[in-house]
Amino acid sequence: MENRNVTVEQLKDLIHHKNVQELRRMFNDYNIVDMSELVDQLDMNEALFIFKTLKKNVTSEIFSYLPHDKQEDLIQSFTGPEIQEMLDNLYSDDIVDFMEEMPANIVKRVLQNIKPARRAEINKLLNYREDSCGSIMNTNYITLKRNETVLQSIERLRRLKNIDRALGYAYITDTKRELIGSISLKQLLYLNDDDKIEDTMDTDLVYVHTNDEQEKAAQLVQKYDISTIPVINDEGKLAGAITYDDIIDVIHEEATEDIHKMSGVQPTDEPYLETGVLSMYKHRIVWLLVLMIGATFTGNILMIFEEKLSTVAYLTVFVPMLMDAAGNAGNQSSTMITRALALGELKINDIFKVWFKEFRVAILCGVTMGVVNFFRVLIFMGMVDIETSIVISVTVMCTVMVAKLIGCTLPMIAVKLGFDPAVMAGPLITTLVDVVALLIYLGLASFFLL
Amino acid sequence: MENRNVTVEQLKDLIHHKNVQELRRMFNDYNIVDMSELVDQLDMNEALFIFKTLKKNVTSEIFSYLPHDKQEDLIQSFTGPEIQEMLDNLYSDDIVDFMEEMPANIVKRVLQNIKPARRAEINKLLNYREDSCGSIMNTNYITLKRNETVLQSIERLRRLKNIDRALGYAYITDTKRELIGSISLKQLLYLNDDDKIEDTMDTDLVYVHTNDEQEKAAQLVQKYDISTIPVINDEGKLAGAITYDDIIDVIHEEATEDIHKMSGVQPTDEPYLETGVLSMYKHRIVWLLVLMIGATFTGNILMIFEEKLSTVAYLTVFVPMLMDAAGNAGNQSSTMITRALALGELKINDIFKVWFKEFRVAILCGVTMGVVNFFRVLIFMGMVDIETSIVISVTVMCTVMVAKLIGCTLPMIAVKLGFDPAVMAGPLITTLVDVVALLIYLGLASFFLL
Repeated sequence: MENRNVTVEQLKDLIHHKNVQELRRMFNDYNIVDMSELVDQLDMNEALFIFKTLKKNVTSEIFSYLPHDKQEDLIQSFTGPEIQEMLDNLYSDDIVDFMEEMPANIVKRVLQNIKPARRAEINKLLNYREDSCGSIMNTNYITLKRNETVLQSIERLRRLKNIDRALGYAYITDTKRELIGSISLKQLLYLNDDDKIEDTMDTDLVYVHTNDEQEKAAQLVQKYDISTIPVINDEGKLAGAITYDDIIDVIHEEATEDIHKMSGVQPTDEPYLETGVLSMYKHRIVWLLVLMIGATFTGNILMIFEEKLSTVAYLTVFVPMLMDAAGNAGNQSSTMITRALALGELKINDIFKVWFKEFRVAILCGVTMGVVNFFRVLIFMGMVDIETSIVISVTVMCTVMVAKLIGCTLPMIAVKLGFDPAVMAGPLITTLVDVVALLIYLGLASFFLL
Repeated sequence: MENRNVTVEQLKDLIHHKNVQELRRMFNDYNIVDMSELVDQLDMNEALFIFKTLKKNVTSEIFSYLPHDKQEDLIQSFTGPEIQEMLDNLYSDDIVDFMEEMPANIVKRVLQNIKPARRAEINKLLNYREDSCGSIMNTNYITLKRNETVLQSIERLRRLKNIDRALGYAYITDTKRELIGSISLKQLLYLNDDDKIEDTMDTDLVYVHTNDEQEKAAQLVQKYDISTIPVINDEGKLAGAITYDDIIDVIHEEATEDIHKMSGVQPTDEPYLETGVLSMYKHRIVWLLVLMIGATFTGNILMIFEEKLSTVAYLTVFVPMLMDAAGNAGNQSSTMITRALALGELKINDIFKVWFKEFRVAILCGVTMGVVNFFRVLIFMGMVDIETSIVISVTVMCTVMVAKLIGCTLPMIAVKLGFDPAVMAGPLITTLVDVVALLIYLGLASFFLL
């Protein structure tokens, strides 16, 4: 990475001296991702100079790496023909990517300045449900003919332009554009010039449909170790292909979504610093309110028993600890199950195996917690009498066990009912096990102490 | 996926009839990942029949897709020469992958039956720290010579065997085996036969070192949209390459690790069903105990104030709700910050931007929660008097705000101190904000009510 040392000052200097030759050399020699980061730091006039002097295939690639607000500013400064030229050099999935984030006036401006054939294609892509395979596929895939030789195919490839460098496979379709085979482009290097494509192509195909969840594409790519997965439309025809770089983005997105849901935040795929305060507020307040209203149950239970509880010294003091222990124990189980479900390590019919495993873990954790709690109270909270201390320890033991069983069951039930298990993990479980912990405590305390 | 319908019964039938020809055809035509899943369902004798009759390059690939316990059983049933033949056909990263999970006697058996040159290589790979780039790289990379033509390079490629199909790039090194360039294999298709490699290779290289964290490789692959990243050893020489399929595994692993840490589970990369009960117990009990001991603080605070609190009716009833609200609010912030840090969306010097943003979100959430709580108490808990209800609402407001600020600050501090922010998110924050919530409540209650 010796070359990764062009500074934004050097770049600004070249722009102000209008040193076009050196600028072209620089953008040619250095990595386009790094150069895009520098362009992002330029002011609008400097950036426009870059976009007006460099070749369109270079500026289009830079454009695709810029953040959305910069893209918006640029589109507003471009003339109609400039927009058209830029879009000609962009892959359709990159265009759709940025169109999805733009305000309506920009989307309109872009669609006005796009070639009619392209416009139809982009419109179609924009209409696929967000997070569907159709919305992330690239329509610039490569097709080969089944009756051609390897040499003929290579010659055809050399005439193609604007091919995504992430595309690792070519696809073979029949006369109805139905997918019948695939061949890795690299494979072509190893074959003999006069081998027939149909004799060497892979016919045991892995594919997704345009309406499938993007997660499915990610799972298949991972399972079958392929770099590109073809996408089939409703009529069974080849519609596009999803490449490993988009799959990596999907995997990150899905993990972020699950993490957010698990901590009671409605998921967003906007980067943290680019998300507005109001949008953040909206994504968080719903669950905070739901959970606070949910706490009315525990509050009312405590209220009813308050007088009774106050007859034994220090009984209410342990309520927060019991609730936290139950919440933590439940969360551990629900999180592990939810993640295992997301990774495909667990299926819904593994539920008996899960119960048996969690049951044994729950006993071990529950007993340990109960015993340690007994000594904790003895050592740190000396004024509590032994009898109370035993009841509290037994309560810890029972609530931890019950919380673990609830924690592992709820996500599985969610999947069975078609809900997202990640919503079950986290805050919802905490609220539920809070109530359970309290009921166990009051039950045991009433029986033995009150 | 029309062909995805061979059943395990059909396979068993062919084995019992010793129909080798049909078996060979089947394993050749159908996807090897699917066939491996079927092999996993065979009993040991049936599986051994497959391994003894099919070609070694096929069985090696099947072996690499089997779960670890099946691999272990197979190695134990193989003769020495059989092990050697199998290993010859496996990529080094796959061998290391399975060796890392095997008990010592199996590792010894494998190392005894491996060719000496290969043994040295495997031993070296086994010595790289877990989760380092060295431990996941493939050493079967492809090198080309700078002064060769494209045609000469293609001819050289055709003579190579056992090349990982995920490998998308060839690398060019100088006489000291130092990396000087890279070229995508697909690119070779598009070049003219007599183009010189050194004129067309990419010299602005992206690479990692053997000791770098595997996470770094994942970040670079994602940033630069490359399918393969080269790995350089301590002496600056090319040592291997990491392919996109391993990167996808790393991304899943890192997300799982963070999710586990956030819910107070020590991370494990073993699949849920393959993890033993004792190991699960160990991974969970530590945090459960730490957090229970931590609850001694809240317990003691409540104990000291118990008598005072009991002078106003229903005051202790709201403690669990306050703690939960604070915990949820703090968790939301800490989770969002931790994830944004993990994705590289946030840097440590963004802390002022984070504070300013969270501060405004905290005010909005805090005020909403306070107001809603006032009406919640009024409607659902009528016996609480207005004065108490106002104090509780102000407490909710303040604790939610403070919890959010603690939640966003702790992960950033963790990064600054070189700790993992994921450990800060989740249970640790819950315990801390519990104490804070209690202190705010007691402070406000003492001032206005007691």
